[in-house]
Amino acid sequence: MQQKRILITNDDGIFAPGLAALVQIARDFGEVVVVAPNSPQSGMGHAITLHEPLRLNRIKQFEGIESYECSGTPVDCVKLAKNVLLKDQPIDLCLSGINHGSNASINIIYSGTMSAAMEASLEGIPSIGFSLLDYSFEADFQAPEPFIREIITKAIHTGINSCKLLNVNIPKLERSQIKGIKICRQAEGRWDEEYKESKDPRGESYYWLTGNFITMDAQIDTDMWALNHGYISIVPSIHDLTAHQAIQANHHFEFAMQHDLTTESTL
Amino acid sequence: MQQKRILITNDDGIFAPGLAALVQIARDFGEVVVVAPNSPQSGMGHAITLHEPLRLNRIKQFEGIESYECSGTPVDCVKLAKNVLLKDQPIDLCLSGINHGSNASINIIYSGTMSAAMEASLEGIPSIGFSLLDYSFEADFQAPEPFIREIITKAIHTGINSCKLLNVNIPKLERSQIKGIKICRQAEGRWDEEYKESKDPRGESYYWLTGNFITMDAQIDTDMWALNHGYISIVPSIHDLTAHQAIQANHHFEFAMQHDLTTESTL
Repeated sequence: MQQKRILITNDDGIFAPGLAALVQIARDFGEVVVVAPNSPQSGMGHAITLHEPLRLNRIKQFEGIESYECSGTPVDCVKLAKNVLLKDQPIDLCLSGINHGSNASINIIYSGTMSAAMEASLEGIPSIGFSLLDYSFEADFQAPEPFIREIITKAIHTGINSCKLLNVNIPKLERSQIKGIKICRQAEGRWDEEYKESKDPRGESYYWLTGNFITMDAQIDTDMWALNHGYISIVPSIHDLTAHQAIQANHHFEFAMQHDLTTESTL
Repeated sequence: MQQKRILITNDDGIFAPGLAALVQIARDFGEVVVVAPNSPQSGMGHAITLHEPLRLNRIKQFEGIESYECSGTPVDCVKLAKNVLLKDQPIDLCLSGINHGSNASINIIYSGTMSAAMEASLEGIPSIGFSLLDYSFEADFQAPEPFIREIITKAIHTGINSCKLLNVNIPKLERSQIKGIKICRQAEGRWDEEYKESKDPRGESYYWLTGNFITMDAQIDTDMWALNHGYISIVPSIHDLTAHQAIQANHHFEFAMQHDLTTESTL
């Protein structure tokens, strides 16, 4: 097999066990370069750093693997890898994760892990984000290992087809309990949230987010169904947010041209 | 007309002229509540604050309008408005902006303005993000005013149809030069970026992002075409990132079930 160049990042930071697990698997597939945030960046979504400079430092984190920590967000890590560290060198695959916690359903939008993968896919790099449904630091990343290997193998050998981005979520199960892998659509869901209000030592209020995820869509073709039934879910994903159906349905939603409006009009 | 409750936020911060312009228009449509970041939050995407507490302070920013500044991201502002300030009170419409700069094409993904609007739409609130293609602090937000009024009027009177989120971008033109409003799809585009490397006073390197946006898709049905030809663009937008076509096309991309894998397999 030809030597592939694989960029690995995450949002839990350079020291997260999930990152180490992914590096350990990916090194069998080619030359790995790790660029990960120097602090946890969960919930950073597609944030990029515009108003501050970024730091990028080489560190010895993984034996025999070129590794860098970055002061920015997961998306910054991918941009720095592509435009600074690996400038003019092709990146064959980007892997992000393994995230400590779910990025299924609507969580793809809040996820630094998935936003990093999406950023690479925007640059034409086939990208896969992996997430394990276990938030703990001691999560068992060994259990799904052969499945992760299979997904990477398929991505390298057959490509990711018409879409360059896969959102892979893995149920918290022992290896023998994982039933297999399903290609799914993103389930509808939402967070039922509240803010815990407390007082600081000066008596000023502060708020801290807490909440529960609610699945609003339990159909058999969704990622939530697959995960709830012991399967690893793969949602092929895109960055086109156009509501194409709404455009077609919006024939009555027509707007004025210039000649319909006067400067004084408030309609 | 029944009194509507309208939540307004942005990503340029509570003191941005674009926010003031939007408040000035929206107050004619109902009861306005403003919750905006206390500092500029451009490029924050869909980031939420998980690891720190949030501050929310009432301030007198707009005469006769309830206004709050928040220490968090644009999405945090919407969550705090819904779950703390307006808990158990319906919000009829969320407006975000007017952003100083474009959020057309792929920029919706990086945009705090659009992510705030999307967050409200996830909660079932019809939402519109407005952006003017002028980054300057002194941008002319008066020019598109009648068009913005028309879009808000349509949203309130006819709804936003099958989609709850509109991405509105406005060309930098005098009022008489704006040709009208077009409903569009999101154009394909990408940032051609580089990082400017400099040395700090201690001799350590830092990197600062710079780049140019490249439109890769100039078809007549795109937002970039509309903006380049003097129209205001509206892209009805969604939060389902599933590549539905890729799922249908992926019949050959099948995965193993449990019985195909042994614990030692590396495939």
